[in-house]
Amino acid sequence: MKKPLILVTNDDGITAPGIRALVDVMSDLGRVVVVAPDSPQSGMGHAITMNDPLRIHPVDVFPGIEAWECSGTPVDCVKLAKHVVLKNQQIDLCVSGINHGSNASINIIYSGTLSAAMEASLEGIFSFGFSLLEYGFDADFEPAKPYIRDMVKQVLAKPPTHTLLLNVNIPSGPVIRGVKVCRQADARWIEEFQQAKDPRGQTYYWLTGEFVNHDHDPDTDVHALEEGYISVVPSGHDLTIRAAIPELSYLQR
Amino acid sequence: MKKPLILVTNDDGITAPGIRALVDVMSDLGRVVVVAPDSPQSGMGHAITMNDPLRIHPVDVFPGIEAWECSGTPVDCVKLAKHVVLKNQQIDLCVSGINHGSNASINIIYSGTLSAAMEASLEGIFSFGFSLLEYGFDADFEPAKPYIRDMVKQVLAKPPTHTLLLNVNIPSGPVIRGVKVCRQADARWIEEFQQAKDPRGQTYYWLTGEFVNHDHDPDTDVHALEEGYISVVPSGHDLTIRAAIPELSYLQR
Repeated sequence: MKKPLILVTNDDGITAPGIRALVDVMSDLGRVVVVAPDSPQSGMGHAITMNDPLRIHPVDVFPGIEAWECSGTPVDCVKLAKHVVLKNQQIDLCVSGINHGSNASINIIYSGTLSAAMEASLEGIFSFGFSLLEYGFDADFEPAKPYIRDMVKQVLAKPPTHTLLLNVNIPSGPVIRGVKVCRQADARWIEEFQQAKDPRGQTYYWLTGEFVNHDHDPDTDVHALEEGYISVVPSGHDLTIRAAIPELSYLQR
Repeated sequence: MKKPLILVTNDDGITAPGIRALVDVMSDLGRVVVVAPDSPQSGMGHAITMNDPLRIHPVDVFPGIEAWECSGTPVDCVKLAKHVVLKNQQIDLCVSGINHGSNASINIIYSGTLSAAMEASLEGIFSFGFSLLEYGFDADFEPAKPYIRDMVKQVLAKPPTHTLLLNVNIPSGPVIRGVKVCRQADARWIEEFQQAKDPRGQTYYWLTGEFVNHDHDPDTDVHALEEGYISVVPSGHDLTIRAAIPELSYLQR
């Protein structure tokens, strides 16, 4: 059987430990090609680079693995991977991450990791976004690896029919209790801005905030993670709220 | 009755003609505060600025209207508007645009205009993203104005219960046939990259692409626009595909 072609990307940049862990796992499962940002791109959401040129260079970062660094956003990386690096060869799977920090719940909207995976899913490629609930660069990815390997093998063997994108979040710590398939919790960020003066006396603001969840149903990703399980949320790109269409008929003319 | 407090933003930057047209309409309907990017931010999606400081300055761009320009993304503008400019006063409505170019169908994912409106909706503020299907800076916004005014008045009078975000796209040209409430068409961008050499002989790539729609159902936004109608798509931020949850039970352990 032909080995599957697996595209690996992320948003923390090609030198982040999380992508190294993902390349380790994927290199047992198929032919791996890495196309990732040359610098950190956290919080880039589904940004694309329209008004600037993009650069892409082969790099020798992962022994024996084809890898390219790109000047753009995570979504740019996926587009360049498909159209420039792989010249429209069939990509069998895209995996993005492992992100340093949670992308559960509403974080999917802001996350470069998940946006890269979503972009691949828009191209018809089955995609995973993986995130570990541990921000530090000394995060331990080892306990997550066998779970990632098993999930990817299972989905390659039996792809689901209703989704092309799985948002997978992994609790930190040595013990993982299992895997739950669930829905996105309806949580929010409560923002604050740190205000300060630069050396020229000009005011600047720095975004900070706190993740607040009031959605405590047991079928949510946040709940699964709190209980020590890996959360898997099948996700899409159709934002339409169908229930609101009839009630808005008063706008029609 | 107290005048509603209306936040106006966009992604084309505070000097774009589209935001001027929107300020014109809104200034009849409430107290308007503008917080918009100091430079074009198209294609920024839901990007936020985490690793850089943000600047914000009052500007005298719209006669008699409080206006601020911000160094960040459209989503940053909404966060700064709520927490810094308006210091958590109740904002009754957020309108974003009028974008120069379509944000129908899958464009909602890439659009800074819509991401700003979505960010406001996450804060519980009813929001509109408005876009005109005309890229030029000489676009004629006049035919759209009475429709925008009427829609905003109707929603302020009778807010829907199932959605806080309306993605409104407006056909270009002098004649608008009416307004249709519809769903997001399942369309895609087919990308290409222009390849060229810079003056130092280094290769660069420039993103380009073509919008392709194979979803011709009459209940879609693309269809409404093709027929000359304004499209209104009630939209949300829950990306979960519930139908995929049971079929993925084989991942659980």
